[in-house]
Amino acid sequence: VPAPYASVDKRIELVRSAALLLHEQGFQRTTLADVAGHAGVPLGNVYYYFKTKEALAESVILAHVDAIRARLEAWVAVHEAPGERLRRLVRAPLDNAERVIQFGCPHGSLCQELEKLGPDAPLAKAAATMLHVFIDWASEQFGELGHTDREARAYAIQLIAGIQGTMLVAHTMRSPELLSQQLRRLEKSFDEAFTPKSTRRRS
Amino acid sequence: VPAPYASVDKRIELVRSAALLLHEQGFQRTTLADVAGHAGVPLGNVYYYFKTKEALAESVILAHVDAIRARLEAWVAVHEAPGERLRRLVRAPLDNAERVIQFGCPHGSLCQELEKLGPDAPLAKAAATMLHVFIDWASEQFGELGHTDREARAYAIQLIAGIQGTMLVAHTMRSPELLSQQLRRLEKSFDEAFTPKSTRRRS
Repeated sequence: VPAPYASVDKRIELVRSAALLLHEQGFQRTTLADVAGHAGVPLGNVYYYFKTKEALAESVILAHVDAIRARLEAWVAVHEAPGERLRRLVRAPLDNAERVIQFGCPHGSLCQELEKLGPDAPLAKAAATMLHVFIDWASEQFGELGHTDREARAYAIQLIAGIQGTMLVAHTMRSPELLSQQLRRLEKSFDEAFTPKSTRRRS
Repeated sequence: VPAPYASVDKRIELVRSAALLLHEQGFQRTTLADVAGHAGVPLGNVYYYFKTKEALAESVILAHVDAIRARLEAWVAVHEAPGERLRRLVRAPLDNAERVIQFGCPHGSLCQELEKLGPDAPLAKAAATMLHVFIDWASEQFGELGHTDREARAYAIQLIAGIQGTMLVAHTMRSPELLSQQLRRLEKSFDEAFTPKSTRRRS
């Protein structure tokens, strides 16, 4: 049954190409024709999978969310200590440093752009879920370290904000050194928060 | 001489309107016609002042830089202690909290969008100057507190990144409470860095 297989492949390839182009050019500047060209799919065929650029962007965001979840789960599997998992999160932009410097954070820059569509725009809501997944996961890790729910969430937001801000500044300055230096500083500033406080919890 | 006066006023009004619209809608989604309509200037007249949207956006950035410089100078005039000036900087997003929640940081979101034009694009370079002005000023303040040049600059970047990241997350979550709570945490995390170390400088 070659036809359905080909269809699934094409759909995946379109979403993959769209993710790259949204990161490189942003949503507004990317056309369905750009995506078709990048994926090597005739534009006429694109409409079979995605009626609008909005629908394609929504699939890109869902793919990002899946990929983020898979990464976070892998860190949980590899690192037993929640503090180590959170340190891994802080270093994550370095896995992809060249593209972060060139185009900014693939998630954060998409949020920044799509949130301008207004709070009720489906794409704005979808984009926000990317940050929510990071924040919820980080909250869980801080919770496991013995912080109260309220404090764990505040730490999580502070950490995600720090990572996002660092990527924005390093991208704007086009400086890989700044990225690694500042992520190291951010990690250091969380040294205490990354240490289990369960032993001194009720002291 | 009413004509020249009117011209200057119109030019200023166009830049002011463009600044608002770039903040609210972003650069890509804003047309010269939008700006003309907002400023109450016939579109045909707009071309007399700005040949392209790019030229208008560059003037918006220059106006932002002037306004940022004026604000920073005012804080220097009002607060004698560099630590107080830096605390004022951290609280600055609260002066305009409603618009920050609705549209993000007027400077950071413009950087995020225009940097995608590539490192050699004039608008990308212009946008970066906005962050540079903040970082250079903050470096100066940290320097006055007794930090080495290198450390003062690292602190300055860390602070600006923290403020930018906080605005992005609070905007994405549409939460004014998150904005004020997280800025308070950010300020607290800098308590030591905001304290003059000149007395213990060579100890």
